[in-house]
Amino acid sequence: MIAIGIDIGGTSIKGASINDKGIILDRFSLDVNKDDQPEKTIGDLCDVINEFVKTHKYDEPIEGIGIGSPGVINHDRGEILSSPNLPTWEHFYLRDFVESRTGYKVYINNDANVAALGEAVFGSGKEYNNAIMLTLGTGVGSGIIMNKRIYDGNLHQGAEIGHMVIRVGGRPCGCGRRGCLETYASATALINDTKKALEKDPKSLMADEIKLLGKLDARVPFNAMRKGDKAATRVVKGYIKSLSEGILNICNIFRPEVVILSGGVANEGDFLIKRIKRYMKKYDYGMIHSPFVDVKQAKLGYDSGKIGAACLVFSK
Amino acid sequence: MIAIGIDIGGTSIKGASINDKGIILDRFSLDVNKDDQPEKTIGDLCDVINEFVKTHKYDEPIEGIGIGSPGVINHDRGEILSSPNLPTWEHFYLRDFVESRTGYKVYINNDANVAALGEAVFGSGKEYNNAIMLTLGTGVGSGIIMNKRIYDGNLHQGAEIGHMVIRVGGRPCGCGRRGCLETYASATALINDTKKALEKDPKSLMADEIKLLGKLDARVPFNAMRKGDKAATRVVKGYIKSLSEGILNICNIFRPEVVILSGGVANEGDFLIKRIKRYMKKYDYGMIHSPFVDVKQAKLGYDSGKIGAACLVFSK
Repeated sequence: MIAIGIDIGGTSIKGASINDKGIILDRFSLDVNKDDQPEKTIGDLCDVINEFVKTHKYDEPIEGIGIGSPGVINHDRGEILSSPNLPTWEHFYLRDFVESRTGYKVYINNDANVAALGEAVFGSGKEYNNAIMLTLGTGVGSGIIMNKRIYDGNLHQGAEIGHMVIRVGGRPCGCGRRGCLETYASATALINDTKKALEKDPKSLMADEIKLLGKLDARVPFNAMRKGDKAATRVVKGYIKSLSEGILNICNIFRPEVVILSGGVANEGDFLIKRIKRYMKKYDYGMIHSPFVDVKQAKLGYDSGKIGAACLVFSK
Repeated sequence: MIAIGIDIGGTSIKGASINDKGIILDRFSLDVNKDDQPEKTIGDLCDVINEFVKTHKYDEPIEGIGIGSPGVINHDRGEILSSPNLPTWEHFYLRDFVESRTGYKVYINNDANVAALGEAVFGSGKEYNNAIMLTLGTGVGSGIIMNKRIYDGNLHQGAEIGHMVIRVGGRPCGCGRRGCLETYASATALINDTKKALEKDPKSLMADEIKLLGKLDARVPFNAMRKGDKAATRVVKGYIKSLSEGILNICNIFRPEVVILSGGVANEGDFLIKRIKRYMKKYDYGMIHSPFVDVKQAKLGYDSGKIGAACLVFSK
C-alpha cells in the first residue's frame, strides 16, 4: 500500500509518497507565501500532487492522501478553523478541497499529532503500541498515541500536555495559567534560564559557548556543563528535574510504553535521556509493580510529519 | 441482557443482578474476613452466586459476571497480584476460579476503574462518551473512561491521576514524590489543612462544627465557610484552587466531556462545583476555542461499583 503524506508548514509544504513500511519513495515540495489565500496555496499543492502522481508510477496503488496541518482543526468537517502561522486560513475546508481537486480520499490532522503518529508507528516507538511524544521547542508540544492511533480528546482539542501545570502559581504561561510544563521544559525556558544564570555569573563558560556557536540556543548550557561549568550544571539540572517531573506525571496518568522526545533539546540525546531515566527510576510510582516506561529520542527528524500523515491513510 | 455485578471490599462483598439499562434488579451480599484465604472468601461468594441464580429467574439470560476488585491486577491472566486491604490475596487467579465454580464468563477490573465506568455509563456521565472520575477520599482515586470503556494504560497500571504532581517539591506523598494532587485535593489533605488552620486560629467556627458533627471531616471547613468564618474560607479556597488546577490539567491533557467528582468531599455538591467551574472558566486553555468540560457530582453512590462491574460484561 502507498500513501501520499503531506506536512504543511508556515514557509513550505513538503510531501512524499510513502509505503506501508514507512519508507519514503519520492519527495516533492513547494514554497508557501503565508499571506496568500488558502485556495491559492492549496490549489498550487493540488497541481503539484496531480503532476507528481502522473510522473511517479508504482507497483501498488496510491490509497489516499494524509495531511498534517498547523492550526485548530474541526476533523469531522475537515475544516481548518484558524492557524496562527497562516493568518489567512480561516474556516477553510481543506479536506474537501483536496479531495475534489485530486480525486483521492484525504485525511487531515493537527501537525503535532501527525508527527507523533509517525514516530510512534515507524520511528522510535515502532516496537510499542502506546507512545507519547513531547516536542521540546519554542513550547512543549505533545502527541498521544494509543494502539497506534492519535488520541486528542473531545473535538480533537486535548493532548496539550505542555499545558499541564507542574508548579501552581509558578511561571506565567501564554495560555493564561501559571506553572505549565512548557514554561520550564521548553527550549525557550532553557534559554531564558541560561540568560538569567549568565546575568548572575557572567564568567560562566556558557558565555564562551555562545561565542563559539554564534548564538544562544539549547546547546549552550549542555556544552558548558560537559566542560564542568557549575552555573551551567545548575541550569541543566533544574531543567531536567522539571522535564522529568512532567514525564513522571505522564507515566502515572497514561503508563505508556515509551515517551519520545523530539525538538531542539532532544538533540542532546543520551546525555539528556540518561539523566531523565535516573530521575525517573528514583521517583516512579509503584516502583517494582509498575511496568517500565522507556524514554527515547525521536529519530525521523523532519520526515516524521510526512510519514505520520501517510499513517492517517494506512490506519483509516 | 442481564449481568451480575460484584464489588469486593475489605469488609464485605456486594453483588446484584443488573439489566443493560443499568437498573439493579436484586441484590446480595456477604461478609469478608480479611484474614481468610481468597479460596475461602471467593468460594463462599461462588456459593452465594449459584444460590442467587437458582432462586432468581429473569426473562432474559444472565450474560456473565463482572467483578471490581481492590489491588493490583493482571487482567490478561485474571490474576490479583496483591491487595493492600486483603493481605492474604497474592497471585490469586480470581477470574478462572469464579468461572470454574459458576460456569459463567467472568470479567474483572480494578475497583476504582469499575466505579468510574458505572458512573460514566449509567450515572452522571450517561450523556457523554468520555468521562474522568476523581474520588476525593483518603487519597484521590481516578478512573479514565474513553468511548464508554476503561483506559488504564500499559498492563493496566496507569490512570493514577491523584499522583500527578501539581507542585514540584511540594507536600510529601506516600508514592515517594512531592506535590501530588492527592496531597492537596484528598479529603485527608482538607482535614489536615483544617487542623493547621485551627491551631493558628482556635476561635474559628470550625471548632464549633467539629463539636456539632462529633468529628472532624470534610464537612467542617465547608460548613464554617457557609457561616462566614474567615479561616474556613481560606482553607476551602486553597483546597478548591488545587483541585481546580488538577481538573484543568485533566482538561488540557484529555479534554473529556465531563469530570465526575465522587467521595466524601463531593457531597458538598453545588457549593463546591460552582466554585470549581468559576475557577476553570477563568483559566481554561484555548478559552472560546476549547470545548466546554462539564463538572458533575457522582450520583450512583455505593452502587457505582456493582453497576460498573456489570458494564464490564455489557461492553465485552
